[in-house]
Amino acid sequence: MIVAKGLEGIIVDNSSICKIDGNAGRLIYRGYDIHDLASSLSFEEVAYLLWNGDLPNHQQLRELNNELVRQRTVPQELKSAIRNLPTSSNALDVLRTAISILGAETPLKKPEMMDAIAISAKIPTINAAFYRIRNGQEPIEPRDDLNHAADYLYMLSGRDPEPVKVEALNKYLILLADHGMNSSTFTARVVASTWADMYSAVVAAICALKGPLHGGAPAPVLKMLQDIGKPERAEEWIRNELKSDRRLMGFGHRVYRTTDPRAEILRGIGEKSAPKDLVELAETVEETGIRILQEYRPQRKLYANVEFYSAVVMHSVGLSPDLFTATFAASRSVGWTANVLEQAANNRLIRPETEYTGPMNRKVVHINAR
Amino acid sequence: MIVAKGLEGIIVDNSSICKIDGNAGRLIYRGYDIHDLASSLSFEEVAYLLWNGDLPNHQQLRELNNELVRQRTVPQELKSAIRNLPTSSNALDVLRTAISILGAETPLKKPEMMDAIAISAKIPTINAAFYRIRNGQEPIEPRDDLNHAADYLYMLSGRDPEPVKVEALNKYLILLADHGMNSSTFTARVVASTWADMYSAVVAAICALKGPLHGGAPAPVLKMLQDIGKPERAEEWIRNELKSDRRLMGFGHRVYRTTDPRAEILRGIGEKSAPKDLVELAETVEETGIRILQEYRPQRKLYANVEFYSAVVMHSVGLSPDLFTATFAASRSVGWTANVLEQAANNRLIRPETEYTGPMNRKVVHINAR
Repeated sequence: MIVAKGLEGIIVDNSSICKIDGNAGRLIYRGYDIHDLASSLSFEEVAYLLWNGDLPNHQQLRELNNELVRQRTVPQELKSAIRNLPTSSNALDVLRTAISILGAETPLKKPEMMDAIAISAKIPTINAAFYRIRNGQEPIEPRDDLNHAADYLYMLSGRDPEPVKVEALNKYLILLADHGMNSSTFTARVVASTWADMYSAVVAAICALKGPLHGGAPAPVLKMLQDIGKPERAEEWIRNELKSDRRLMGFGHRVYRTTDPRAEILRGIGEKSAPKDLVELAETVEETGIRILQEYRPQRKLYANVEFYSAVVMHSVGLSPDLFTATFAASRSVGWTANVLEQAANNRLIRPETEYTGPMNRKVVHINAR
Repeated sequence: MIVAKGLEGIIVDNSSICKIDGNAGRLIYRGYDIHDLASSLSFEEVAYLLWNGDLPNHQQLRELNNELVRQRTVPQELKSAIRNLPTSSNALDVLRTAISILGAETPLKKPEMMDAIAISAKIPTINAAFYRIRNGQEPIEPRDDLNHAADYLYMLSGRDPEPVKVEALNKYLILLADHGMNSSTFTARVVASTWADMYSAVVAAICALKGPLHGGAPAPVLKMLQDIGKPERAEEWIRNELKSDRRLMGFGHRVYRTTDPRAEILRGIGEKSAPKDLVELAETVEETGIRILQEYRPQRKLYANVEFYSAVVMHSVGLSPDLFTATFAASRSVGWTANVLEQAANNRLIRPETEYTGPMNRKVVHINAR
């Protein structure tokens, strides 16, 4: 029996959403290269593309915008529920709970596009509401004159966001919106394969995003950069981590055998939006990390992954580290829901097997004889 | 490229928890046949076995019992949160939300046995609290002198439960506690593989359990039996469903090529605990369904599955159909958490791939040109 531990290289389905060419370092959404999408489009256009398969014309984009804006508000009861959670909660756990509550209001139904739009529209509102509540401030209502990225920053700070930050966040949201069968998207598809509803699939995806081997990485990356503090300390700090058998966060990826194209684009965004000393530090840590990791694993070169420069960009637009993973969810929710719609349209229950390696033929003896 | 749609027959890992022999119709927990476990043990003993690998001695069982009893109570704030959910909510969505709230109170940590015990201890309390609130009644505090099955029935009704019902529910809880890489357990392992915490893994598993192709089946089975009403109507009703291209609930299983041993044992329990006319009806529907399905799919005989007689047994112990899946979760939580502990002990990120079948080499054109 061949055990496909981690399901590395196992093809679970056909998909027309996303292609990753791990050897060439290319990422394609619906036939478009990620460089082209990130350089010229809005997050809303890319969301339309991922959900529908084609880029929108003016009217299609206007309709999606209207629906996203309409869906941004959350019920008063949801805000009360968020208020009742401990302020020490992880923002991602709050988001998981909030989407679960929203899902508890609907009867079981087949996943629909409207669910996808509602969920993606509401995630920034939920994240911002919790952030402000935990800081002792009142949540701010969404505005209907701002795009998705700008409205998120506005609801966090209450101030008109700077255009450079809006642009950086807009690109971040595009770059992270989908990535094939990453663990959270795969989780969403497994849940959808049981004929569960869209909210259940997204709640489960949020659960998988939490882990530091997936969406939980950027906050530890920022902490690493802050701990290192200065470029000249990078080498010693990294060697010490690896000597102590700790994992270096922000390096390596299951699929890419070369540079992650998202990491490259995010590095460029960081160079424009982040403070100069942080950019210098990050670039030194990147180079040093790659070099030292190659000493440890000469058979496979590891590169900085998307989480590495995600941390730099999210920090530069003013997001606090405890919002990093919940902001990742704001972006990836589009990919999750697009995948759930695709799974539901041509479903087969996802149910693998394990190989039993435990004892056999045991007989139950009375507890007195154990 | 071979596409393993549904991951049928794909071995995702080794496991020493559960063996299913689909050809022989055998189910083994940790080396013990399910018939032996269900005939003589308490749910608590089997939970100990699944979590620890061996059956407990007196002291080990006493310690587990004490811990389960201590963990049965839920915080007052959780009861308020349940009270604030719409009474029209699905009980499983309430459970999903409640476990998510409990998980939001802890920082990210490696899954531990204590989390497993706490979650399994609290699920009946949560289910019963919502059930009573939705019926306009006050939740009832757990009792420390009742076993897991008895205390669940007591918290639902407020009355001392009948021994025949306690025994039936105890056996049900044992029989459903684990079943290899079923979709919800697999979901829990995918989530745990990202280094997420135990609560996140269990919340995600609950999401997967909801679907009618998995844990959502028993309530539709009971509805089917009630719709059919009398044994002599079974044939016409079933033929009509299949002619209308609707799926017959409660028949067929991905893994079993013969009778599901759990269905057989549950049928025997139903014969003792359910009203005689329901048993007669169920047995006629079972025989008729098998016979007619064989006409439709002569190449593969389908049998009544565990959901079929789960419905009969859960109904017979007095559970309302909207609690069926949430009660399934009370049992399967032991398997979920045992699997999460096993995954965390020897982890590899679960991250498969898809084969891209969409368009390629598209160029972004300006929105005016679309």
